[in-house]
Amino acid sequence: MTPKLDPAGNVTTAPGFRAGGTFAGIKTAGEGKLDLGILAADFPCVVAATFTQNRFRSAAVEVNVEHLADARARAVVVNSGCANSSTGERGMADAREMAALVAAKLGIASTEVLVGSTGVIGQYLPMDKIAAGVSAISLAHDGGSVFSRAIMTTDTRPKHGAVRFGPYTLGGCCKGAAMIHPNMATMLAYLTTDAPVEPGFLRAELRAAVDRSFNMVAIDTDTSPSDTVLLFARDPAGQPGALDAKSPLAAEFRAALQAMCTHLAREIARDGEGSTRMMEATVTGAASEAEARNLARLLTTSYLLKSAVHGADPNWGRISAVIGRSGAAFDEADVTIDLCGARVFERSRPTDFDPAAVSAAMRAELVPIAVSLGNGPGTATAWGCDLTPEYVHLNADYTT
Amino acid sequence: MTPKLDPAGNVTTAPGFRAGGTFAGIKTAGEGKLDLGILAADFPCVVAATFTQNRFRSAAVEVNVEHLADARARAVVVNSGCANSSTGERGMADAREMAALVAAKLGIASTEVLVGSTGVIGQYLPMDKIAAGVSAISLAHDGGSVFSRAIMTTDTRPKHGAVRFGPYTLGGCCKGAAMIHPNMATMLAYLTTDAPVEPGFLRAELRAAVDRSFNMVAIDTDTSPSDTVLLFARDPAGQPGALDAKSPLAAEFRAALQAMCTHLAREIARDGEGSTRMMEATVTGAASEAEARNLARLLTTSYLLKSAVHGADPNWGRISAVIGRSGAAFDEADVTIDLCGARVFERSRPTDFDPAAVSAAMRAELVPIAVSLGNGPGTATAWGCDLTPEYVHLNADYTT
Repeated sequence: MTPKLDPAGNVTTAPGFRAGGTFAGIKTAGEGKLDLGILAADFPCVVAATFTQNRFRSAAVEVNVEHLADARARAVVVNSGCANSSTGERGMADAREMAALVAAKLGIASTEVLVGSTGVIGQYLPMDKIAAGVSAISLAHDGGSVFSRAIMTTDTRPKHGAVRFGPYTLGGCCKGAAMIHPNMATMLAYLTTDAPVEPGFLRAELRAAVDRSFNMVAIDTDTSPSDTVLLFARDPAGQPGALDAKSPLAAEFRAALQAMCTHLAREIARDGEGSTRMMEATVTGAASEAEARNLARLLTTSYLLKSAVHGADPNWGRISAVIGRSGAAFDEADVTIDLCGARVFERSRPTDFDPAAVSAAMRAELVPIAVSLGNGPGTATAWGCDLTPEYVHLNADYTT
Repeated sequence: MTPKLDPAGNVTTAPGFRAGGTFAGIKTAGEGKLDLGILAADFPCVVAATFTQNRFRSAAVEVNVEHLADARARAVVVNSGCANSSTGERGMADAREMAALVAAKLGIASTEVLVGSTGVIGQYLPMDKIAAGVSAISLAHDGGSVFSRAIMTTDTRPKHGAVRFGPYTLGGCCKGAAMIHPNMATMLAYLTTDAPVEPGFLRAELRAAVDRSFNMVAIDTDTSPSDTVLLFARDPAGQPGALDAKSPLAAEFRAALQAMCTHLAREIARDGEGSTRMMEATVTGAASEAEARNLARLLTTSYLLKSAVHGADPNWGRISAVIGRSGAAFDEADVTIDLCGARVFERSRPTDFDPAAVSAAMRAELVPIAVSLGNGPGTATAWGCDLTPEYVHLNADYTT
C-alpha cells in the first residue's frame, strides 16, 4: 500500500532539521527571487547520496564525494544561478570555500557540509556574494519552504512533500527542468528523516527508490553534470532501534521513501520546461526489467511522440516506432498499445478506435501510454512531458 | 580526393535507367504534388540494400528482403503519403500486389520489383489508386527528376546528384525529414550505376558508405520502420571488366559512392523539418571509431544543443554535458571544444572567447562543432539541424 503523502511537507517537516535562504545576487534580481539556501541537522547524520553519471561532474559533486567518504554530514548549502561546472581548479576551490563558509557559521567541520550548485555551466561562482549570503541566512525549524524556493531556477513552483512511517517522518524537496539562463536541466533533491538508519541500508534503499523515480523522469535527453540526491538520516550511533533491513519498520520505511521519491519525480515531470501536460509511460511484459525501463524512458524522450502529445494527436505509429527501435525482444503479434486507456494496436494491426475521442482524452493534464510486449515479467514506468514551441524558445535564448 | 559531384544529376543520369511518376491521389491534392514513382533498369541488375534497424519493419521492407534473396532486381515502385507499416497481413499482401502491378506493366517477374512506402504509419494503402497510378506512369530516360519529386513527403525540395568514375556514372536521389500527415521521418534513397559490379563487393561498399553518411544524419531520434537504401548496378554476369575489390577502378568507385551518399545525407540534414540551419559535429581523438560515432550522433540529437544552435547561443556547456554523458573515455584536461572555429574550452576550463562573435558565426547556414578527446585515433562526423518551434508545430498536428 502506498503511504499517504502530504504535499505541503518539506525538508524541515522531520523534527531536528532547520533551513533558510536568501537572495545573494547570483541570479539577476526579481520579485521574491532567492538563490542561496542552507539545510542543517541538529544532530549528527548519516547521508546516502546518488550523483550524476555524467563523466564531466560539477565541482559540487566532486566535493560531495570527498566529504561523504565517511557517509556522514550535517548540512548542505545550495546556490542557483551558476552550476560551477567545467570550471577546473578554481571551481573546485570555490566549492570547498562555500562549504567552509557554512561550516564556520554552524561551528562544524568543513567536511560535514555538502554543496550544490545549479545554473549555467562554465561560469565561476561570485564568491563575495556567496560569503555575504551565507552570513545573511537565518535557519529555522520551519525554513523548508524558503529552502525549496532558493534552489529553484526556471521551475514554476517549489516541489516538496513529507510522509510518515511509524514514529518517524521523511521530508523532501527537489528542483528540476529549469534554468536561470536557459542551460542544463539540473535535478537536485534533498531528503531528511529523523529516523536513525544504518548507513548501508540507507544507501541501498535510496538507490532502489531513485532507480524507480528520479531515474525515470525525462524532460529531454540531456544529463546534467550536477544531478544529486541527498538523503539525511539521524546517525544511528548510540541510538536505540536503528533501522536496518531486519527492522520491523523496514518495509514501511521503504514504502515511504519510494512514495516520496515518486512524488518528487512526478512533480519534476509536471513542471517540465515549457510543458503543458505530463506523459506517463508504462511498459509490461518485457523480457527483463532493463528492457522495460529502457523502452519506458525512450517513450518519454521521443521528439515525435512528445510533439504528438503536445498536439493531442493519437498518432500511435510513433509509439510502435519507438518500441521497434528500443532493442527490446518481442513478437509483433503479442504487442498491445493503449493510449489514454484506448487500445489502438493489437494482433499486428490497428484497432478501429475513435481518434476524436482519444484526442480529446489526450488534452488532459496526464497522458498515460501503456505498452505490453507479451514476452516476460519486466515492467517499468517513466514520466515525461510534451515538447512545446515554448521549450525551444526558452532554450534558444542567448546565455550572455 | 573527393570526386566532383553534379548536384543536378539524378537516378536516370547513369545510362540504362528510366523513371517516372504521377499523382495517384494517395496524398490530398496540391499543386505539382506527386505521390507514386517507378524506377526501372533496361538491363538485369544486382542490388545492394540497407534497411532500417527498427524491429517493427514496414511491409515494403519485408517484401524487399524476400525479393532480394538472390540480390537481383530491375525496378522499384515507391509511394508517398502512406507508410504501409504496422498493417499486418493485409499490408504485406498490398505491398506484394504493388510489386505485381509494376511487374505486369514492365513484363518482368514480381520478384524483380522492389517496393517503397513512406508516410503515415498504421494506415492501409489505397490499392485502387495505386493500380490506376501504376498504369498512368510513363517511364523516360530523363525521368529521374519526376521520380525524385514523387517520393517526397514534407521535404521542401528534391535531393539528388550524380558523379562520374572512370567510364561510368553513379546517380542517386533520396527523401527524408518529412511526412505527409506529420508522422515518421522516413529516409529512402535510391542509387543507380551503369557499372557492372560484383554483388558481394557492391554490398560491402554500400554498407561502408552508408555508415559514414546516412547513418550519421539525425533530424530527431526516431528511427523509421521504413528506412531503405537501394543501390542498383548492372548485373556483371557475362559483362567484361566487372568491378570488384581488385579492379583498378575499385578505389574510384568507392570514392564516388561515398561522395554520393555524403551529398545526399547532408541534403537531408539541410532540409530537416522546420530547421533553419545545419549542424556538423566532428569528433577526433576518441579511443575508438565507435565512441567517436556515438558522441558525434549524440551531439546532433541533444534537445538543448539543437535549441542553442537555433538561438545562435554559444552555450558550450551543453556540448561538454553531452560529451560527459556519451560514455566515451577521456581525461577532462585533454578535451577541447571548438564552436564555429572558436576554441571555447580547453585544459578543464573556459577560454576567454568572444561570445558575441561566436553567436554571429552561429547564424550561418552551417554550424560546425569540433570536439577533440585527446585519447586515441577514433574520428567521426555527423550531421543534424537546429530544433525549432516550427518542428513542434509540424509534428503536433492531428493525423486524422
